[in-house]
Amino acid sequence: MAAVRWISLVSIGLNIAFVAAGVLVVARRGGWAYLQARWHRKTNPEMTIYQSPYYRQRQSQLEKLTVSTDDILFLGDSITDEGEWSDWFSAVTIRNRGISGDTTSGVLRRLPGLLKTPPQAIFLMIGINDLIVLGRSPDQVLSHYQQILTLIQQSAPQTQVYVQSVLPVSDAAFPGINPKILQLNQGIAALAEALGYRYVNLHPLFVVDGEIDGACTADGVHLNGEGYARWVDYLRPLIAAGVAQ
Amino acid sequence: MAAVRWISLVSIGLNIAFVAAGVLVVARRGGWAYLQARWHRKTNPEMTIYQSPYYRQRQSQLEKLTVSTDDILFLGDSITDEGEWSDWFSAVTIRNRGISGDTTSGVLRRLPGLLKTPPQAIFLMIGINDLIVLGRSPDQVLSHYQQILTLIQQSAPQTQVYVQSVLPVSDAAFPGINPKILQLNQGIAALAEALGYRYVNLHPLFVVDGEIDGACTADGVHLNGEGYARWVDYLRPLIAAGVAQ
Repeated sequence: MAAVRWISLVSIGLNIAFVAAGVLVVARRGGWAYLQARWHRKTNPEMTIYQSPYYRQRQSQLEKLTVSTDDILFLGDSITDEGEWSDWFSAVTIRNRGISGDTTSGVLRRLPGLLKTPPQAIFLMIGINDLIVLGRSPDQVLSHYQQILTLIQQSAPQTQVYVQSVLPVSDAAFPGINPKILQLNQGIAALAEALGYRYVNLHPLFVVDGEIDGACTADGVHLNGEGYARWVDYLRPLIAAGVAQ
Repeated sequence: MAAVRWISLVSIGLNIAFVAAGVLVVARRGGWAYLQARWHRKTNPEMTIYQSPYYRQRQSQLEKLTVSTDDILFLGDSITDEGEWSDWFSAVTIRNRGISGDTTSGVLRRLPGLLKTPPQAIFLMIGINDLIVLGRSPDQVLSHYQQILTLIQQSAPQTQVYVQSVLPVSDAAFPGINPKILQLNQGIAALAEALGYRYVNLHPLFVVDGEIDGACTADGVHLNGEGYARWVDYLRPLIAAGVAQ
């Protein structure tokens, strides 16, 4: 029986060590506040995006910047946010209105502010975070697209809108997302046509075997220099033809 | 003895459950590759910065962009990266050459590429990640500053350099860092003067009770719209006076 007692002592010691290690990890990450934040992130993924320090800081900066009616807005999420648009296009004034993490609902919230001075044109690319982060269906995302495009048409009827397709992602990093992107893009194209806006189909420039070309990305969703160069090369004639310089 | 046996069974069961939960968490985060990445991050914090997908993607984009000798480079880390400089300054051409996460060593690595076409001016702000992420001492950071400024002076003697102070941070989020920032800034000011460059002391614009003014930040280190507005207001006369438009 000494063996059983000895085993149970070691085992209980291990129990205490495991629990202590767990408490320590949680304590080092911020204790109770950390657990609350984790829970909030799980139960309110959408508000977590808008309440993140980055989103709030970026939005408050963008709200301080003014726009003229000659400007072109690039509106979207991180893929827009991370582009050095004023470097890529020197002949026209591009205003970067991307916010990393943004979704179709975030764009809908920001639109009234952005349309106070209607810009000459808007290049819109949004929706990948709806699919990846919020787990929305293509149909849910499309109903937001409908609201976004209708709101622009009502508030800024003179503004040209270029509705860009959502880009493919890496299958390994984001399993199951590429088929949803195809479905979403079909709907986006149809909505753009119905509202008389130009659909800009970038997806074929980036796709290889149904997923994003590895030459364009390091993490399977965001773009590197080669990715931005492909995008910009495709937009250049559109901007030259359609937008006053 | 039945009680002892019963307790030891429960205890062993709990241990198996703890281990299984640990294995599951690791497996969900990427298994062996995740553990290797964690270890790499701990043992090579500096290479982890440069090898992050964001850093590589951003650097490869910046390498595709060209600069003219009339341009002004804003060079630094996330605090520079996140600024919409071309919106804030419309009369001059500002090129954003900030990369989130960058350090004095990263700037030193990037400088030869950035100086191929020497710009009219460089506004430099770097060093907070050296202190916070890499745990470097102010003296170590200053030896990198010495190398950065000397390299610019040798490779681009016509380029004006505005050496900006490191901004204060929040004491709660980054305990023990603010005293190091003060020490670093003293050294930066002395180095700038020794090399004949202008020291731009932004620190007083942002400091309240020894730490960053809460009105300028959401996370205690990065800036919101109010933060960028203060910075830009301070730079405007400097740029108007010192830089050809």
